[in-house]
Amino acid sequence: MGTTGQDTYPFDGRPVTALCGGIGGAKLALGLSRVLAPGQLRVVVNTGDDFEHLGLHISPDIDTVLYTLSGLADPVRGWGQVDETWAFMAALEALGGETWFRLGDRDLATHVERTRRLRAGESLSSVVEAFAQSLGIATRILPMSDDSVCTVVETDEGALAFQDYFVRRQCRPRVSAMRYDGADTAGVLPAVLDTIADPEQAAIILCPSNPYLSIGPILAIPSLRRAILAAAAPVIAVSPIVAGRAIKGPAAKLMAELGLEVSSAEIARYYRDLIDGFVLDTADADLAAGIGCPTHVTNTVMESLGDREQLARTCLSFAASLSETVGPKRPG
Amino acid sequence: MGTTGQDTYPFDGRPVTALCGGIGGAKLALGLSRVLAPGQLRVVVNTGDDFEHLGLHISPDIDTVLYTLSGLADPVRGWGQVDETWAFMAALEALGGETWFRLGDRDLATHVERTRRLRAGESLSSVVEAFAQSLGIATRILPMSDDSVCTVVETDEGALAFQDYFVRRQCRPRVSAMRYDGADTAGVLPAVLDTIADPEQAAIILCPSNPYLSIGPILAIPSLRRAILAAAAPVIAVSPIVAGRAIKGPAAKLMAELGLEVSSAEIARYYRDLIDGFVLDTADADLAAGIGCPTHVTNTVMESLGDREQLARTCLSFAASLSETVGPKRPG
Repeated sequence: MGTTGQDTYPFDGRPVTALCGGIGGAKLALGLSRVLAPGQLRVVVNTGDDFEHLGLHISPDIDTVLYTLSGLADPVRGWGQVDETWAFMAALEALGGETWFRLGDRDLATHVERTRRLRAGESLSSVVEAFAQSLGIATRILPMSDDSVCTVVETDEGALAFQDYFVRRQCRPRVSAMRYDGADTAGVLPAVLDTIADPEQAAIILCPSNPYLSIGPILAIPSLRRAILAAAAPVIAVSPIVAGRAIKGPAAKLMAELGLEVSSAEIARYYRDLIDGFVLDTADADLAAGIGCPTHVTNTVMESLGDREQLARTCLSFAASLSETVGPKRPG
Repeated sequence: MGTTGQDTYPFDGRPVTALCGGIGGAKLALGLSRVLAPGQLRVVVNTGDDFEHLGLHISPDIDTVLYTLSGLADPVRGWGQVDETWAFMAALEALGGETWFRLGDRDLATHVERTRRLRAGESLSSVVEAFAQSLGIATRILPMSDDSVCTVVETDEGALAFQDYFVRRQCRPRVSAMRYDGADTAGVLPAVLDTIADPEQAAIILCPSNPYLSIGPILAIPSLRRAILAAAAPVIAVSPIVAGRAIKGPAAKLMAELGLEVSSAEIARYYRDLIDGFVLDTADADLAAGIGCPTHVTNTVMESLGDREQLARTCLSFAASLSETVGPKRPG
């Protein structure tokens, strides 16, 4: 159990970058934001799940990070805002509208205002920055790209856009492959590349989000992947698989359908050319020896706020221990 | 006090058309819908107040009529839905969004779904028809046009779009003139023209909405005005001014600023080339003799549902009494 949060883990004030998707990743991002000094953390967030619904631009992972870091996230449901109400959905249903994707009344303000600003010509990153400021978030939240990248899941029911697979079909179709449409040509924000290339960077942390559906789209952008490969800072990943199961979401089902071993070791293989260190759960301690890079075994299941902070501290310490020996994996 | 509503006023089942704007007009439309047989009433509604806000297409008068006729309208506030909640507005405010135009959580579903359907290429009239059906409304609700008409108020603070004047500036600026941008070239739905020209038509009723801001935009569409002038059915108007004051809204202030006499007589003058009969309040009985067309004096203040039904019956009887003598005012 970690101490609860006021004292920060200074890491000499040097910046730390986290890459994450939604719920699982956002938990660690919250822990990091609380143990680091205000503004020390930057979070690069998956936008491959972004889609248009009811004419609104929805950025599920960005919103989960915004809500989590501002204390607005619903701790039970895992998505959307706490104390949410559903009058809009009830009225939409009465009008014969589409209700498979549930939008809470408070959450809707985010989508309506973001859509308005995007249509007025603002970039997604600028909108996110303004929202973070309005919500009092000191952490810099950076979309992986301002361009559209669309995670498509190839299934036995055909190619499905992510939310179609994840929400409408509730991950039931059998997955044979993923692709990240638009990633090849998506631009990366200078702020993201600067962040990763920053020689002062203390650590780059791949949060325990789904590697294939949340971190994969980020790493599919060539310039972003190259920047991580060239980064001087140690890169570590935290396994989202514990004892052969995903803490949350479809990662385990998906790995099995792709013919992969459902284990932390497989996650480490997925990240192998990028990472300098790998964090896995105590339940998987026996796998550590075979991982093929430095590992750290700890509790990775984040139930309490203390768990999030403790895992954050552990990741930072582990990265610090690696930073002596690490250099660019492939010179830029 | 009228009887409350189950028995209908058959008028031989012949169609009746009402023209209206928002609150005051919708009250009479509700009364008419309850005393006529289901489907016997058609309501042509002002869309000159329609505007885009937060990227959503908002049709204030259409929505007031939809909510009033479906029993969803808030009886106290006078706009929006009953039992409305405001979580969206609170969240929008927290994000730094614009909050001068208040959108309730339930109301928002109407705007989001309408906007989605319009963007997908549907016409406003088709969306309104679908909404009316979903809400169980038997009355046919017809937007005055599927094309954009924008009521602009010329004021001492410059030209203001209607909602800017009405909501944001709360009718404070001094008005010198109105114009209805786009009315000259706006198409009228064939269903509206057919409705007005229908030889079976029993009556055309100009509801007690603001003549300058709600009925004026409808009548500013040349083909629609011509159709009313050519209609065989008697056309009657109900005064929204009682004893020199407006029941609701800025009509009286506006008339004074335009240099007009604030009276029922002035309203009758505004409509003089169109109407065959004029309904005015008992408080204005002394004006009846000077109106210059057949008049009917009755209680026009609609507080209870019974009042709405009673005024509806009175208007229908008055129209019936005129129908013997009335023909086209100006042959089509």
